[in-house]
Amino acid sequence: MEQRTEIASMGEFGLIEHLTKNIEVKNASTLVGVGDDGAVIDHFGRQTVLSTDLLIEGIHFDLSYTPLKHLGYKSVVVNLSDLYAMNATPTQILLSIGFSNRFSVESLDEFYAGVYAACETYNVDLIGGDTSSSQKGLIISVTAIGEVAPNSFVKRGGAQVNDLICVSGELGGAFLGLTLLEREKKIFEETGAQPDLEGQKTIVGRLLKPEARKDIIEYFTESNIVPTSMIDVSDGLSSDILHICKQSDKGCVLYEDKIPFNEEAKEFAYKLKLDPTACALSGGEDYELLFTIAQEDYEKIKSNPSVSVIGYIADASEGKHIITRGGNKHALVAQGWNHIK
Amino acid sequence: MEQRTEIASMGEFGLIEHLTKNIEVKNASTLVGVGDDGAVIDHFGRQTVLSTDLLIEGIHFDLSYTPLKHLGYKSVVVNLSDLYAMNATPTQILLSIGFSNRFSVESLDEFYAGVYAACETYNVDLIGGDTSSSQKGLIISVTAIGEVAPNSFVKRGGAQVNDLICVSGELGGAFLGLTLLEREKKIFEETGAQPDLEGQKTIVGRLLKPEARKDIIEYFTESNIVPTSMIDVSDGLSSDILHICKQSDKGCVLYEDKIPFNEEAKEFAYKLKLDPTACALSGGEDYELLFTIAQEDYEKIKSNPSVSVIGYIADASEGKHIITRGGNKHALVAQGWNHIK
Repeated sequence: MEQRTEIASMGEFGLIEHLTKNIEVKNASTLVGVGDDGAVIDHFGRQTVLSTDLLIEGIHFDLSYTPLKHLGYKSVVVNLSDLYAMNATPTQILLSIGFSNRFSVESLDEFYAGVYAACETYNVDLIGGDTSSSQKGLIISVTAIGEVAPNSFVKRGGAQVNDLICVSGELGGAFLGLTLLEREKKIFEETGAQPDLEGQKTIVGRLLKPEARKDIIEYFTESNIVPTSMIDVSDGLSSDILHICKQSDKGCVLYEDKIPFNEEAKEFAYKLKLDPTACALSGGEDYELLFTIAQEDYEKIKSNPSVSVIGYIADASEGKHIITRGGNKHALVAQGWNHIK
Repeated sequence: MEQRTEIASMGEFGLIEHLTKNIEVKNASTLVGVGDDGAVIDHFGRQTVLSTDLLIEGIHFDLSYTPLKHLGYKSVVVNLSDLYAMNATPTQILLSIGFSNRFSVESLDEFYAGVYAACETYNVDLIGGDTSSSQKGLIISVTAIGEVAPNSFVKRGGAQVNDLICVSGELGGAFLGLTLLEREKKIFEETGAQPDLEGQKTIVGRLLKPEARKDIIEYFTESNIVPTSMIDVSDGLSSDILHICKQSDKGCVLYEDKIPFNEEAKEFAYKLKLDPTACALSGGEDYELLFTIAQEDYEKIKSNPSVSVIGYIADASEGKHIITRGGNKHALVAQGWNHIK
């Protein structure tokens, strides 16, 4: 039988000690970590960037098909993605969790194993947080802290007319993974049939264990590129490019045939009679980087196979559009991921 | 009729704009605030201190007797208290909230009015956060960021043998306020009788609208005092002094007759046949500062009327004790606020 240790048997402080006893500090700037009223980070002429996310069971994730270890990993990654979207290097995280009494110490260990795996992959230190019981479900709050060379941070609002719009990786996969898992869950609930995930590893992986684009930020530094604006694709391409346009007070033109898709994702979309472009535009959680660069940087970016140029920034008066494969022009509308319904 | 605007009518981004449109940046170190993937803070040779708290309805607060504005204020204050407990000056906060559909925009406005009032009082900037729906109740996560002159931060672990144990303000009030409100709630549920809070403003205020001890940190700077260890009293005096002893690897002696009480709180305790000392030792949420200083700093601290010397640090082998008014010696036990039951 699997071991089940009641969390109540450890008490809050015992639990914190249990969950954090193996932490090894990776960044010299981490002066004080877990175990005091606050954490202390040192700075020498660098700027600090912070981001925070709240993840709530039943709203942001479904534990019936999300392994806790993956959830821990993803909780960290989605926050780091926000820092990369500022052109910053993550250095530390704070992690708070609230959990009902259906969770055992072993289940929290699983969750933290994912958290620590992400800390390892992205070279960040867990330096503090809070633990609490909850009346219902699992609640996760992560704050990520990073650094950037003075005034090298990239905001959403700096895009200029004629800048190229670029995106890393492939889009739409996470949305299709979610669609697949929701469908299989429904079939299981109705018929008891085991999930059929054959040949769908990529899209399921995109949803359950996304990665943040550390490599793109490193490429920027190596290639001496500073994007004029940047955001991570968490709400869907359409919603996210509209954020850049709004905060930059500009318009844009996207080309449907330039939007990068994964082949497996595309085939699954067709199987479900879904339009892959619609999945990319409106599906969220891809955690790719969407950014704009000056035209003179095109030569520098084109040698990176992970980056696609998908359109350009226009004057605000020209609106925000997508040109379809057939040559039609449609207005972009925000219909991305919306956690407030 | 009171206006009720459904949150869904605004959408997530509309809501964020609505809730943050009046922010004015107070700290020069705030380079980028609300409205991007991350916030950016500048540093010039100072050290950054961070703290975070998760507050969950039904666990940490009861909206049947907690006004939302007070709750907003308190959510900020409890985090700032952690920074003061590190001898740091708070400069920014990140605030995330999750709320079920029983909350209207007006109710969130009330909550944020309290948040902004605390930001004003303590001179901090709200620089980011996350908003989400929740399946049940209100969830609040606050991360506070502060700064401290290089290596002036004060940890829990620095207490030395013969150091004086000091505490600011008065203890036990918040616990008695909670006891009163819980009692009145029960009476109301059973009989419909309106709450009788006559003459109990102090203890109710201590629970619902606590303040963090900014003044004590400022006094330290003015008087050239650096405590050897410090913690804020959030779990109860007993639990919190045991944290200092454990992390300093020391013992302690407290004197019951030195523990500071509010007169109103004491009278209410007697009325309920509760021991005021037990309320101070085990009741949480007073948000006073508990700290240790070297004996040679006694002259500097004694002129501050808000500070009481309540005992001294002993060798670890001597254990952790309290000497009662009657001269008896009892071992201190941790039975403070425990949010994991």
